[in-house]
Amino acid sequence: MQDSTYSSEILQYIPFFYVIWSDDLLTASEIDVVQNAIDADNSLSEKSRAQLFTWLNTNNPPANSELKKWKRTISNSSVKLVESETYPLTSLSQKIVCHYKEECPFNDQLKHIEIQLGIQPNHYNHLFDVEVVHKSTSDFYSADAIDTILKGKHSTVVDNFRKTLTEPIFKWEVHRDKEKFRETVLNQVKFLAKKGYGAMAYPEAYGGTGDMEGYAYMFENMMFADGSLSIKFGVQFGLFGGSIQKLGTKKHHDQYLTKTGKTELLGCFAMTETGHGSNVRGIKTTATYNKATDEIVIHTPGKNDNKEYIGNALQSKMATVFAQLIVEGKNEGVHAILVPLRNKEHELLPGVTVEDNGYKLGLNGVDNGKIWFDQVAVPRENLLNKYGDIKEDGSYYSEIKNPNKRFFTMLGTLVGGRICVARAGLGGAKFALAIAIKHALKRRQFNDSVKIQEDLLMDYPTHQLRLTPSVASAYVYHVTLDKMMQLYCDPSEPDKRKVETQVAGLKSIITWYANDTIQECREACGGKGYLLENRIADLKGDVDIFTTFEGDNTVLLLLAAKGVLSDFKSEFNSAGFSAVLKILGMQINDKLTTINPIYSNKVDKDHLYNPKFHKHALEYRTRRLTYTLAMRIRDYIKQGVPSYQAFLKVQTHLLALGKAYSNELAYSTFIDFTQDIEDDKNRTLFQKLGTLHALYTIRQDAEWYLEQGYIGGTKSKAIRQRVERLCSELRPHIGVLVDSFGIPEHCMTAPITQ
Amino acid sequence: MQDSTYSSEILQYIPFFYVIWSDDLLTASEIDVVQNAIDADNSLSEKSRAQLFTWLNTNNPPANSELKKWKRTISNSSVKLVESETYPLTSLSQKIVCHYKEECPFNDQLKHIEIQLGIQPNHYNHLFDVEVVHKSTSDFYSADAIDTILKGKHSTVVDNFRKTLTEPIFKWEVHRDKEKFRETVLNQVKFLAKKGYGAMAYPEAYGGTGDMEGYAYMFENMMFADGSLSIKFGVQFGLFGGSIQKLGTKKHHDQYLTKTGKTELLGCFAMTETGHGSNVRGIKTTATYNKATDEIVIHTPGKNDNKEYIGNALQSKMATVFAQLIVEGKNEGVHAILVPLRNKEHELLPGVTVEDNGYKLGLNGVDNGKIWFDQVAVPRENLLNKYGDIKEDGSYYSEIKNPNKRFFTMLGTLVGGRICVARAGLGGAKFALAIAIKHALKRRQFNDSVKIQEDLLMDYPTHQLRLTPSVASAYVYHVTLDKMMQLYCDPSEPDKRKVETQVAGLKSIITWYANDTIQECREACGGKGYLLENRIADLKGDVDIFTTFEGDNTVLLLLAAKGVLSDFKSEFNSAGFSAVLKILGMQINDKLTTINPIYSNKVDKDHLYNPKFHKHALEYRTRRLTYTLAMRIRDYIKQGVPSYQAFLKVQTHLLALGKAYSNELAYSTFIDFTQDIEDDKNRTLFQKLGTLHALYTIRQDAEWYLEQGYIGGTKSKAIRQRVERLCSELRPHIGVLVDSFGIPEHCMTAPITQ
Repeated sequence: MQDSTYSSEILQYIPFFYVIWSDDLLTASEIDVVQNAIDADNSLSEKSRAQLFTWLNTNNPPANSELKKWKRTISNSSVKLVESETYPLTSLSQKIVCHYKEECPFNDQLKHIEIQLGIQPNHYNHLFDVEVVHKSTSDFYSADAIDTILKGKHSTVVDNFRKTLTEPIFKWEVHRDKEKFRETVLNQVKFLAKKGYGAMAYPEAYGGTGDMEGYAYMFENMMFADGSLSIKFGVQFGLFGGSIQKLGTKKHHDQYLTKTGKTELLGCFAMTETGHGSNVRGIKTTATYNKATDEIVIHTPGKNDNKEYIGNALQSKMATVFAQLIVEGKNEGVHAILVPLRNKEHELLPGVTVEDNGYKLGLNGVDNGKIWFDQVAVPRENLLNKYGDIKEDGSYYSEIKNPNKRFFTMLGTLVGGRICVARAGLGGAKFALAIAIKHALKRRQFNDSVKIQEDLLMDYPTHQLRLTPSVASAYVYHVTLDKMMQLYCDPSEPDKRKVETQVAGLKSIITWYANDTIQECREACGGKGYLLENRIADLKGDVDIFTTFEGDNTVLLLLAAKGVLSDFKSEFNSAGFSAVLKILGMQINDKLTTINPIYSNKVDKDHLYNPKFHKHALEYRTRRLTYTLAMRIRDYIKQGVPSYQAFLKVQTHLLALGKAYSNELAYSTFIDFTQDIEDDKNRTLFQKLGTLHALYTIRQDAEWYLEQGYIGGTKSKAIRQRVERLCSELRPHIGVLVDSFGIPEHCMTAPITQ
Repeated sequence: MQDSTYSSEILQYIPFFYVIWSDDLLTASEIDVVQNAIDADNSLSEKSRAQLFTWLNTNNPPANSELKKWKRTISNSSVKLVESETYPLTSLSQKIVCHYKEECPFNDQLKHIEIQLGIQPNHYNHLFDVEVVHKSTSDFYSADAIDTILKGKHSTVVDNFRKTLTEPIFKWEVHRDKEKFRETVLNQVKFLAKKGYGAMAYPEAYGGTGDMEGYAYMFENMMFADGSLSIKFGVQFGLFGGSIQKLGTKKHHDQYLTKTGKTELLGCFAMTETGHGSNVRGIKTTATYNKATDEIVIHTPGKNDNKEYIGNALQSKMATVFAQLIVEGKNEGVHAILVPLRNKEHELLPGVTVEDNGYKLGLNGVDNGKIWFDQVAVPRENLLNKYGDIKEDGSYYSEIKNPNKRFFTMLGTLVGGRICVARAGLGGAKFALAIAIKHALKRRQFNDSVKIQEDLLMDYPTHQLRLTPSVASAYVYHVTLDKMMQLYCDPSEPDKRKVETQVAGLKSIITWYANDTIQECREACGGKGYLLENRIADLKGDVDIFTTFEGDNTVLLLLAAKGVLSDFKSEFNSAGFSAVLKILGMQINDKLTTINPIYSNKVDKDHLYNPKFHKHALEYRTRRLTYTLAMRIRDYIKQGVPSYQAFLKVQTHLLALGKAYSNELAYSTFIDFTQDIEDDKNRTLFQKLGTLHALYTIRQDAEWYLEQGYIGGTKSKAIRQRVERLCSELRPHIGVLVDSFGIPEHCMTAPITQ
């Protein structure tokens, strides 16, 4: 036993004080925690207590010589730091007192400080120059319990589906030849159909369980097997089957829906045209009703008016074709018609031309193609006639008189697909994060010349900052998309236009998030991430296009922004601009929260971690952008600038609003969700993830908040520091946080995770 | 002829005033331009002049009713706006006066305003409600002239090389099978070798012209043919041949260099190991000198100590192997040794194991593999002995006594490769930009209900903002990399360590820029961008790994930052930390520019467009970050935190410094370059590109500048607006700006550009 010049009362606090002062984040609330613990510590004499208090004064911090003496005291004790202990720092302190004083009391107040400040071994294991018994990850939380919270009411569906994914048919392998790959994926889709998954979202009468929410969850999980599988599945059952289910009537359901769910009928969804990507209302394909023959004639007028990029085009027997419906010489707008493409021998029918789109960056298991129609006649019954019909007498009839409204009602049926695409993107991001983090918990890199073992990649602050906020966001977006699907499926809310606007924005920010995340993961795995065998490369290729299909992200954000501007009442189109502008008049008078200088400089941990602050900040941005946009548009109009041009002039501003609104929506949905988590431990974890996501999001727009004076420079810096700090606090749990995504072990084939 | 209530004197100014007031950017210097023109306009009466002046008062702007009257006057004239005229707005004004007053004077002062304010038809063609004769692009600048400026002294080499790329062997096609693809690329490499391109950077005695700078330019242009070709070429001639040239001595040159240049000897560069990615000094492969046999024995000790990701591994006969050289039982550090891999029949030699890395996200025409050595003996002569040798008597000798210095001297020879990788990334970005912009100048999207024709994609502000800054940056980085290669090749500067640090940072920011740009281009082309036939998909897959190889970007930025911190004098490694810290002492006393509130709120166009402002802002960030980093590290050290841990704690801060330094360097290099452009017209264009790049770059870090108080909120917003404005000013020239990249027409195979 050596002696120490410190009394044991003081000695037990020394590791804590050393950690606290070597860090940069000692804020008022943190000092409070320590002060209160010392106050409540009955083992201390008044003298010791006074001594400890002098070391808590931020205006007069302990001298460097004192700090060095603390450090020597710790190192010379030759005590080991055991990271796996429940309270590693408290235990270390106890052992140090043991060593010097031969008395080993366990102090509850120290434990209290350790918990309250969230001090983790990875914060201080480098500091003491003592031997460290490492633990790459903590088991404080249970991955199963977290997964259960995420699954919610869909546990059974999801668990069964994950089990199905263990079937040999889903074994991942490198596919280079598109024909073979398409064959494999088609067989997988048929296999799932046989198990009843294809029809899942359809009514019971047609082989399903009407469980659209479960369908979406399953869709996300499919990404763990293969991206092409997800998309092919979505085209067959969601787009083609969904168009029959939602745009057709009973006769169509009876004739086609059961067969579609069983893959006895393969179909595609022919909406987009080469010349008119995002402008569905401007498509050129015509569907002309011929009263003499009682047929509808489908025709592609020009070379570039073909249907483009149609999934399932090579393997389908039938297509839902969107075309300008012309009845009695009048264009009634875009309608959907079922058009047979091929006979039983799989030969193209007369007048139909299909061309393979060829190889793509990803999703080569999906057979995308172009389709031309040359005066192809189909029976009148093939019109999917839920929202518009041709009557027996050959006249057109629709209950929705306004053609714009009719068009957007039909398009509204696509929203489910958008949620699914966002979920698939999220699934891809989760998968990539799990791979990159498992790798980073194994891989060692560089080292201190003193230490024998290289550091784990995951112990680098840059690596933590690169991956941890994305993990937090995955939780937020998971909960948000679940909620959106619930709202979309809620029969008590028949008007889905609000959900449509919300989903438009969320699909954009989430698919962009997915791409950025997958890219970070690729780079975080270095060259290994570039090899197909490690799966991230495929995810990158597959998820890339999610930013474009089911609505180009930029176009969707403009849609979301216009939705916000018109208070969700306009019809999202240029024809509705005047309506938008009328409603703006109301919003302009909206009072904005006055910014208070104390608020904009508040950097206390309690404030920065408070969801009220995050919600306020995110909401403030949406409202402020809405207001300034409305003002700018109004001014343009007053100067005589046509409304179309006025909206063009503020286009980049609209994008910002679309994003701001989506960010606000995602966070508030998540926070509402966390309040219902029953056990404290997991609720606290979820809230911490929410805080990291929120601060990271605010930080992305920090320059705007600073410009507005909503936050001051000091607060902006404090937010950045808190983001880094939270990443490091979550470091011990990062393994569990990705295990909780519930990716089946047999899908985790990447050699770098082994 | 109708009459107008305005006099012809006033009338001629009305289109200008309408454009000016419908815009948001009327700043003091812009008012000055108009005021001076009116002052100098002899055609005006005093009364008219006074009237016009009242309409220039920003404190009391013309009423909206006045603006609407102006607009009516213009629309009612039924004059056409012809975008292709030299001074379209002046001509329009003239024609309006013609229409109302039957007199048609051309007013030089109006022309002067049009030029000075940089007003482009795309700013105002939507405003007037008159018929517009569109022109998708302007021919004010010549693509050839700009290309010539970019090529500089390398014109002949580049032009010849571009001609070579027209050979049928370089015809691009989809490759899915790696074996066939590798064969194709190998044949292309051999073809180039035959033409003398392989040996280009070698001395004349070995078949070259010693033109490393031209080599780098050619390397960039190779990306227009195929990414795998660039990389395979770089491995064979740059890495393998370069290691012989730079680490070997005359005996090696005589025996191998000519053969390598002609591809009679195919070789690979075996440095990286599976277990030790970026930590070259920690590699485990050993090269043990056996005095008895006078041989060096190469050995891979553990399963994960194999050479990893070695390009050309499957097709090579020989490898430059990096290993710990052990002589007389002492480890002399990492050295390079030539090790034969295969015999003439292409069978592996005893003790050598090679495994294919398999399929990758991109670059599948490059044969990457893993290599293990089991006690493989090679003659002592195979040691590349320029910096360290084993003498006849079996003892080790090096002129560089310090092992760290020796190691980094050897590694310094890699810098040329880093410049080439950055250039290849830049080539990929240019190619993607050219494709996306050519597409956006053809593709139409949506429309106003009034207009018959949909707008060109390139006319959308969001589209301009998405692509134009990247075009500007391509110019800046082109010039920067050219200059870096020039410095690297300059024999009058033998100490390349400063260039090394600079290149480390530039390689990182430029390869990240390339990836971001290619991704933007992919999305900007929608689904079409996803098809392999349109080339962007391959570029994305190929360029992705550039962020990782030849030094991981994160690691390189840390290197650059440490270089800055140590005033380019440290040895970039942990062993040198103490040296770094000593030098920091000097920098801490460095006086920082005091920020002046007038400066931080200056939003005038002249100021915001002034390179002095940009340089000051970029330099300020580097210096400020250096200072605060130094202070933080010093404080940690004073508290007893070990230096390795201190650097770990500031890691994210170091990344920021590395980027800041690189941004500053790129811009200042570019500005120096522009000053030497002889003709005013092109110099002005280059400077405008520089301004857009600089403002965009400053804007990326706006939150930091705001936190520091370097810029105020108003200035930050003004910078954002200026970025958008510059994008729109460059809109008419965007076609020429990508044509100037000199991408040979026969490489531009993407159907969407046709």
